[in-house]
Amino acid sequence: MSKSIFYHAGCPVCVSAEHDIVNLIGSDNVELVHLGEQSSRISSAEQAGVKSVPALVTPNGNVLHINFGASMEDVKG
Amino acid sequence: MSKSIFYHAGCPVCVSAEHDIVNLIGSDNVELVHLGEQSSRISSAEQAGVKSVPALVTPNGNVLHINFGASMEDVKG
Repeated sequence: MSKSIFYHAGCPVCVSAEHDIVNLIGSDNVELVHLGEQSSRISSAEQAGVKSVPALVTPNGNVLHINFGASMEDVKG
Repeated sequence: MSKSIFYHAGCPVCVSAEHDIVNLIGSDNVELVHLGEQSSRISSAEQAGVKSVPALVTPNGNVLHINFGASMEDVKG
């Protein structure tokens, strides 16, 4: 199974959700991407349909926006 | 590990998220609760902190609101 990708930006809501997702689906099954530190990944996140962080992109390409930490505009700041 | 609980109300956004969550964490690890059909569960969902559906309550009690299908007010409608 290909990995999910969890996009976040280090915000408290993001960190909390990250722990929950890693606990639920296992750290081996998810790639964690900090868009504040890896700004080169922002465009691919947007192309995947990510509107805000934290968000999980599943292996089949669906985007699950989880709670609300920051908009992509805030991330691009 | 105790189960997570996925609360939903049958809306299209809910059904899509349900499939993703079941695929990600496994059907054995999550209880699915349709609040439209099991209205007796609404109060416990609200006490857990669920503000809208679909939402996943993790074994440690955190609430992950996933995308947005309907508010709890809509569910109670």
